[in-house]
Amino acid sequence: MPGSLVYTGQQHLAVAKLEVIRFNEAAYEREEITLDQLDKVAKDEFVSWLNIEGLHDIEVIKALGETFKIHNLALEDILNVSQRPAIDEYDDHLFLVCKMFSTVEKEIITEQFSMIVAKNLIITFQEKPGDIFDGLRQRIQHPKGRIRLRNSDYLAFALLDVIVDHYMAIIEEYGEEVNIMEAELLDSFSEDMLHDLHLIKKEVNHLRRYARPLKDVITSYIKSETPLLHKSTVPFLKDLNDHILQVTENIEVYRETINDNLNSYHTHMTNKLNDVLKTLTIFSVIFIPLTFIAGVYGMNFEYIPELQYVHAYPILWAVFFGIVVGMLFFFKRKKWL
Amino acid sequence: MPGSLVYTGQQHLAVAKLEVIRFNEAAYEREEITLDQLDKVAKDEFVSWLNIEGLHDIEVIKALGETFKIHNLALEDILNVSQRPAIDEYDDHLFLVCKMFSTVEKEIITEQFSMIVAKNLIITFQEKPGDIFDGLRQRIQHPKGRIRLRNSDYLAFALLDVIVDHYMAIIEEYGEEVNIMEAELLDSFSEDMLHDLHLIKKEVNHLRRYARPLKDVITSYIKSETPLLHKSTVPFLKDLNDHILQVTENIEVYRETINDNLNSYHTHMTNKLNDVLKTLTIFSVIFIPLTFIAGVYGMNFEYIPELQYVHAYPILWAVFFGIVVGMLFFFKRKKWL
Amino acid sequence: MPGSLVYTGQQHLAVAKLEVIRFNEAAYEREEITLDQLDKVAKDEFVSWLNIEGLHDIEVIKALGETFKIHNLALEDILNVSQRPAIDEYDDHLFLVCKMFSTVEKEIITEQFSMIVAKNLIITFQEKPGDIFDGLRQRIQHPKGRIRLRNSDYLAFALLDVIVDHYMAIIEEYGEEVNIMEAELLDSFSEDMLHDLHLIKKEVNHLRRYARPLKDVITSYIKSETPLLHKSTVPFLKDLNDHILQVTENIEVYRETINDNLNSYHTHMTNKLNDVLKTLTIFSVIFIPLTFIAGVYGMNFEYIPELQYVHAYPILWAVFFGIVVGMLFFFKRKKWL
Amino acid sequence: MPGSLVYTGQQHLAVAKLEVIRFNEAAYEREEITLDQLDKVAKDEFVSWLNIEGLHDIEVIKALGETFKIHNLALEDILNVSQRPAIDEYDDHLFLVCKMFSTVEKEIITEQFSMIVAKNLIITFQEKPGDIFDGLRQRIQHPKGRIRLRNSDYLAFALLDVIVDHYMAIIEEYGEEVNIMEAELLDSFSEDMLHDLHLIKKEVNHLRRYARPLKDVITSYIKSETPLLHKSTVPFLKDLNDHILQVTENIEVYRETINDNLNSYHTHMTNKLNDVLKTLTIFSVIFIPLTFIAGVYGMNFEYIPELQYVHAYPILWAVFFGIVVGMLFFFKRKKWL
Amino acid sequence: MPGSLVYTGQQHLAVAKLEVIRFNEAAYEREEITLDQLDKVAKDEFVSWLNIEGLHDIEVIKALGETFKIHNLALEDILNVSQRPAIDEYDDHLFLVCKMFSTVEKEIITEQFSMIVAKNLIITFQEKPGDIFDGLRQRIQHPKGRIRLRNSDYLAFALLDVIVDHYMAIIEEYGEEVNIMEAELLDSFSEDMLHDLHLIKKEVNHLRRYARPLKDVITSYIKSETPLLHKSTVPFLKDLNDHILQVTENIEVYRETINDNLNSYHTHMTNKLNDVLKTLTIFSVIFIPLTFIAGVYGMNFEYIPELQYVHAYPILWAVFFGIVVGMLFFFKRKKWL
Repeated sequence: MPGSLVYTGQQHLAVAKLEVIRFNEAAYEREEITLDQLDKVAKDEFVSWLNIEGLHDIEVIKALGETFKIHNLALEDILNVSQRPAIDEYDDHLFLVCKMFSTVEKEIITEQFSMIVAKNLIITFQEKPGDIFDGLRQRIQHPKGRIRLRNSDYLAFALLDVIVDHYMAIIEEYGEEVNIMEAELLDSFSEDMLHDLHLIKKEVNHLRRYARPLKDVITSYIKSETPLLHKSTVPFLKDLNDHILQVTENIEVYRETINDNLNSYHTHMTNKLNDVLKTLTIFSVIFIPLTFIAGVYGMNFEYIPELQYVHAYPILWAVFFGIVVGMLFFFKRKKWL
Repeated sequence: MPGSLVYTGQQHLAVAKLEVIRFNEAAYEREEITLDQLDKVAKDEFVSWLNIEGLHDIEVIKALGETFKIHNLALEDILNVSQRPAIDEYDDHLFLVCKMFSTVEKEIITEQFSMIVAKNLIITFQEKPGDIFDGLRQRIQHPKGRIRLRNSDYLAFALLDVIVDHYMAIIEEYGEEVNIMEAELLDSFSEDMLHDLHLIKKEVNHLRRYARPLKDVITSYIKSETPLLHKSTVPFLKDLNDHILQVTENIEVYRETINDNLNSYHTHMTNKLNDVLKTLTIFSVIFIPLTFIAGVYGMNFEYIPELQYVHAYPILWAVFFGIVVGMLFFFKRKKWL
Repeated sequence: MPGSLVYTGQQHLAVAKLEVIRFNEAAYEREEITLDQLDKVAKDEFVSWLNIEGLHDIEVIKALGETFKIHNLALEDILNVSQRPAIDEYDDHLFLVCKMFSTVEKEIITEQFSMIVAKNLIITFQEKPGDIFDGLRQRIQHPKGRIRLRNSDYLAFALLDVIVDHYMAIIEEYGEEVNIMEAELLDSFSEDMLHDLHLIKKEVNHLRRYARPLKDVITSYIKSETPLLHKSTVPFLKDLNDHILQVTENIEVYRETINDNLNSYHTHMTNKLNDVLKTLTIFSVIFIPLTFIAGVYGMNFEYIPELQYVHAYPILWAVFFGIVVGMLFFFKRKKWL
Repeated sequence: MPGSLVYTGQQHLAVAKLEVIRFNEAAYEREEITLDQLDKVAKDEFVSWLNIEGLHDIEVIKALGETFKIHNLALEDILNVSQRPAIDEYDDHLFLVCKMFSTVEKEIITEQFSMIVAKNLIITFQEKPGDIFDGLRQRIQHPKGRIRLRNSDYLAFALLDVIVDHYMAIIEEYGEEVNIMEAELLDSFSEDMLHDLHLIKKEVNHLRRYARPLKDVITSYIKSETPLLHKSTVPFLKDLNDHILQVTENIEVYRETINDNLNSYHTHMTNKLNDVLKTLTIFSVIFIPLTFIAGVYGMNFEYIPELQYVHAYPILWAVFFGIVVGMLFFFKRKKWL
Repeated sequence: MPGSLVYTGQQHLAVAKLEVIRFNEAAYEREEITLDQLDKVAKDEFVSWLNIEGLHDIEVIKALGETFKIHNLALEDILNVSQRPAIDEYDDHLFLVCKMFSTVEKEIITEQFSMIVAKNLIITFQEKPGDIFDGLRQRIQHPKGRIRLRNSDYLAFALLDVIVDHYMAIIEEYGEEVNIMEAELLDSFSEDMLHDLHLIKKEVNHLRRYARPLKDVITSYIKSETPLLHKSTVPFLKDLNDHILQVTENIEVYRETINDNLNSYHTHMTNKLNDVLKTLTIFSVIFIPLTFIAGVYGMNFEYIPELQYVHAYPILWAVFFGIVVGMLFFFKRKKWL
C-alpha cells in the first residue's frame, strides 16, 4: 500500500541504535544518541554522519523522516528490504539504496544499505548490527585523513567505495574457487563438484543481480546535476564507477568460466560413457562368437562328426585364438584400442 | 476493420456495471449509475473515477466515447482484449491499456485493464466482475488518506501501483516454487517435475510478455509532457517504474533459474544413464569370459584332456575367482567403482 | 545493373491489369483503364487509387514512371520482388515496399506489395491477381465510411492495416498449431511431429524476416516529416505500429515455444533411451549370473561333486531365486524400479 | 610500423598495371599508362577513373600518393590487405576500403578493394588481375548511359554497387546449397553432409565478417557531409545500403538455417541411436531368459526330474513361445514396437 | 583504502629504473636518471618521454606524483595492477592505463602499462624490465623519423600503436593454432585436443577481457576535447581505433571457431559412440538367437527327437547361416551396414 511505512525484513536488534559522527578539519566527535536528540544531530561547520542500525521500529524511521524532511517514498524504500538499487533526487537531499555484502566465516551476509545525502549530513540505514565501515571510521578519526577536509558528498563516496570494495573482494574469492575447480576438473570429477558449481553459480548470480543496477546508480549519481555533489568529488566517483564496472565484468568472466566448467564436466562424462561402452562392446564382441561356438559343440546331437575327431579340441582353441586376434585387429583399425 | 468497434473477448456479466466514485479533500461519494446518467459523472471540484465492468455491450462503450470525447482508436483498443500494453496521448486525455493479473485459488486470472486519464476524471474498463482495487477504494474512503488531497493523475498512479504490486506478488510466488523445485532436484527427480518446470516456464513467459511493455508504458507516461501529469506525482511514477523494473528483473532471474533446473535435470539423467550403463558393463564384462569358459568345458568333444583331470573343477573355480578379482581391479583402476 | 528495369519475379497474368478507384465525400468511381488513360487517373477533388496487378510488363512500369514522375530507383525496387521492406521519400511522393501474406487453403501465399503515396493519389503494385483488399474496397464504396472523408495518407494507412492484420492472423494460426503440438508432446511423440515443428519454425522465420523490417518502415513513415502525412492520420499509424509490434512479439513468443517443444522432444527421447537401457540392464544383470551358473553345471568334468548330490537341483533353484531377489532389491535401492 | 609502407599480400602480377578511363557526357577515353604519366590522369571537364592492379610495387603506391596527395594512412591501408572495411575522410579526398568477392569455377576469390574518391577522380586499387567491373566499363562506354552524365561520386556508387551485387549473388548461392541440404537431411544423412555444412558455415562466416563492416562504411559515407557527395547521389547510396542490409540479413537467415540443419543432424543421429539400442534391447531381453532356461536343462546334475519327463521338450517350447509373446506384448505396451 | 598508495603486484626489479628520452626535430638525448633529477626531465622545446620500470617502490611513485602534479587517483591506478583499461582527464594531463601483451618463447606475458600524457611530456609506467618499445625507440633515434617532427600526443599514439600491434599479432597466432586444430579435427580427435581447445579459449577470453575496454579507451581519447590532442594526430588515432576494432572482431571470430571446434569434437564423439553401439548391437543380435538354439540342443532331455536325426547337425548349420543372412539383410535395410 503506497503511503504506509512497513518494514519487510526481520528484526535483528532489540532496539534501533543511532550513532552520530561529526567532524571537520579540526574536530571529531562520536556519540550514540536517542530519538529526542535528533534535532541536535547536524551542527554548523561540521559534517555529520548519522548511522541507524535496525529498521524494525517504524517510529524511529518516522521521526527521522519528520526531522530531516525525508520524502515519504524514500522512507518506504528504506523499509522495503527487497528494494532494488536505486537513486532518487529530492528537493534538498539525495536518496540512495543498494545491497551491502560482507563475509562472516566464509558465508556471504547480504544487507540493505540506504543513504540520505544532504548538505553537511549523511544518514545511513542498516538492517543488522555490525558493518564493514570500521576502517572508514578510523580514517575519519585520523586527524590528517583526506576525508576530514571534505564535505558530505565525499563521505557518501567513501561509504560506497567500501561497499564496492567488498563486492570486488567477494567476486574475487568466487573467481579463485572457480579457477581451482577448473584445474581439478582436468584430473577427476564427481557429482559433488557439479553441486558446488551450481551453488557458486547461484551465488554469483545473486551478486550480479545487485551489482549491475548499482553501476547504473553510480552513473546516475555522477550525471545528476545536484548541488550536493561537488566537482572535486566527481573524479572519485568516476574511479568508483570503474571499480563497479570491473566487478560486473569479473562477474561475467566467472559466469562464463562456470559455464565452461559445466561443459567440461559434461564432456568428461560423455567421454567416460564412451569408454564404458567401448569396454562393454570389445568384451562382448570378442566373446559372443566364442561362446556361440562352444555352445555348438555342447549340443547333444548324435551325429556331429567333429566331436569324434581327436585334434578337434586343440584346433578349436586355435580358432578361438584366431577370432580374438582378428577382433583385436578390427578394433585397432577402428582406433578403439 | 479499423473504425468499427468489435469486442474480441468473452461476455462475463449479463449487464455492464458502471460505478462512479467521487471525492475531494472533504467529501466522498460512491454510486452505481446507468447509461443515462453519464453526463453527471464528473462534478466540479471533485475527482471522479468511473469504473466499467463488462465490455461486451458495444453501446455502452459508444456512449462513453461520445460523452467523454474519447478517440475512436482508444475505444477500439479497449474492446480488443489481445491489445498489447500501450499508452496514447490524445488532445485532452491519455489512454493507457495493460494486463491485470490476480490469483484466485492458486490460479492466475488475466484480464485487460484500460484507463482514460482526463482532467479530474479517471475512467477504467475491466472485462470481468470483481477486481484487485478494493484496498484502494478503502484508502479513498478513508478521510485522511493522501489520495484525497490529490488529483486524477495520482489516482491513475495508485491504480497502476496496485496492478504492478500484483505482478510482483505473482512472480514472487513462482520464484518460491522454482526455488523449492531446485532443492528437490538435488535429492530426486521425476518426469512430473520436468512437466511442472515446463508449466511454470510457460506461465513466467506469459507474465513477461506483458510486464516488459508495461515498463515501457510507464516510462512513456513519465516522459510525456502532458499537462495531465502533475510534477508532484512524478516521483511516485518513478518509484512505480522501479517496481516494474524489479518485476522484469525477477522474471529474468527466475527464467534463468528454471533453465538451470532443466539443465540440472538433464545432468542428473545423464548421470543416471552412466550409472545404468556402468552396472551393465561391469556385470557383462565380468561374467562374459566366465560363461565362455564354462561353455568350453560343456563341449562334447571326446578328447578334452582337462575333463578327466581330477582337480580340474576346483582349479577352474580358482580361475573364475582370479578373473573376477582381475576385472574388479581393472574397474577400480578406471575409477568405475 | 542499376538504372535498368528488370522484373525478377514470375509472370502471373497474361496482361497487367490497371484499375482505378476515385472517391471523395460525395462520389465514388471504379474503372479498369488502359495505358493510354494514365493521364486521366488523378482528378481534382478526388482521392485516386490506381492498382496494378502483374509486373512482368516493363513497358507498363515505365509508362507509370514517366506519367507520375516516379524516381527510377522506386521503379527498380517495384520490379525486384526480393526487395526487403523499405520506405523512401522522394521529392513529391513516398515509396513503400513490403511483403503481403495471405492464406489460400491453409497455404501461405507471399507476394510483394509496393505503394506510391502522392498528393491525392495512391498507386499500388501487386505481382499476382486477387488480393486481400476487397473488404477495404467495400468500405470505400460505402457512402458513410470514415475513409471517404480523408485523403491519400489515410488510404495508405488502411492498405497497410489490412496487410498487418493478415500478418497477425497468420502468426496466430501458427501459434495455435504450436500450442496444440505442445499439448500432444506431453502424451506421445513421433518423428513426424519433429518434422512438423521444423516446418513451422521455417515458416515463422519466413514471416519474421519480413515483419521486423516492416516495423521499421512504419516507424520511419511516422517520423518522416513529409507533407504527405497529415497530423490526424498519425494516431492511426501509431496504432498500426502497435499492431506490427505485437506481430513481432508474438513471432518471438512462438519461436521460443517451438524451441521449448524441440527441447521437450529431446528430453522425451532421452527419457525413453534411459528407459530402454534400464530394461536391458535389469534383464541382463539378473540373468547373466544365472546363465553362468547353469553353464558351470553343464560342464563335462568327470569330478564335479555337486552333480551327484541329490538335492543339488532344487538348491540351485533356490540360489537362482535368491540372486533374482537380491538383484531386484539392488535395483530398488538404486531407484531403477 | 606506422609511417612505413609495406605490402602484406602476395604478388599476383609481374608489373603493376595502371589504366585510366576518362569520360564526360560527350567523350570517352581509355588508355593504359605508365608511372610518368600520372600527372596527366585527371583532365578538366572529365571524370577520370584510374585503376591499379597489383600492389606489390611500393614505388607505384608512393608515386600515386605524392601525385594525388593521398594521406599516408590511406596508403598504408591500401597495402595492408588484412585491413577491415573502413572509410576515412581527408582534406580533399575520401578513402574507402572493403573486400571484393567473386566466384571463379565455384570457388570464392577474396580480394581487397581500395578507392580514393576525389573531385572528378576515382582511383581504385586491386590486388589481382581481372575484376568484376567489366559490365560497368561497358556502361561507361555506352554513349547514353546515365553514368556519363554524372560525377565521380556516382562512379564510386556504381563500383560499390557491383561489389555488393556480388556479395548478394554469393550469399544466395550458399543459401540455395543450404536449402538443398535441408531437404536431403529429411531423407538420409551422412558424415560428409556434416562436413559440408561446417564448410559452408565457415564460408558464410567469412562473408559475414566483411559484409557487416561494409554496411557501416556505406552508412558513414551517406552521413558524411563531404562536398564530394552530391545530393542527387544519396538516394542511390541509400538503395545500396538497403542491398547490403539485405545481404547481412540473408547471412543471418542462412546461418540460422545451417544451425537448424546441424541440430536436425544431431536429432537424426540420436533417433538412430535410440533405434539401435531398442533393437539390441528387444533381442537381448527376449533371448536372455530363453537361453538361461536352455542352460538350466543343459546342466549335468544326476537328479533333474524334468529331464526324464517325456513331454518336457515340447512343453519347454511352449514356454519359450509364451515368454516371447509376453515380451512382445510388454514392448508393445511400452510403445517400442 | 582510497587515498593510500599500495602496489598490488609483484616486485620484478631490485631498483626501479627511470629512463628519459628527449627529442625534437634536430636533437635526441637518452639518459638514465635518479629520483633527484626529476625536475630536469622536461626541457623546453623538447618532447620528453620518461619511462619507469618497476612499480614496487612507492616512494618513486610519490616523488613522480609530486613533481609532475599527477592526481592521486591516477597514482593509485598506476599501482593497482588489476586496474581495468581506462582513460581519465585531469586538469593538465591525461591518464591512460591498459594491459600490454608480449610473447616470450611462445608464452604470453601480461603487464600493466600506464601513461601520463602532458604537454611535451609522456610518462610511462611498466611493472617488469624489458618491453616491446625498442623498435619505437629506434624510430625516435632516427633523425628523419616522422615522430621527431611531432609532439607528445603523437608519441602517445605511437606507444599505443605498438601495444595494439602486439594484441593483433597474438590473436593472429591463436587464430592460426585454432585453424590448424580445425583441420586436425576432421581426421582424428583426442582428449588432448579438447584440453588444448579449452586452454586457447581461456587465453583468448583473457585477451578479450582487456581488448574490449581498450577500444573504449581509444574512442574516449579521440572524443575527448583535450588541448593535449592535436587535430593532426586524430586520423592516426582513428586508424588505431580501426586496428583495435579488428582485434576485437578477430577475437569474436576465433571464439566462434573454437566453439565450432568444440561442437565438432562432440559430434565426432557421438558418431563414434553410435559406431560402437552399432557394432555391439549387430554382433549381439546375430549371435543371440544362434547361441539360444545351440543351448536348446545342449539340453539333456531324454526325449528330444531332433537329436537322433542324422542330418540334424548340417541342417542346423544351414539354419544358423540363414539367420545370419537374414539379420545382415535386416541391418542392410536399416542402413546400419
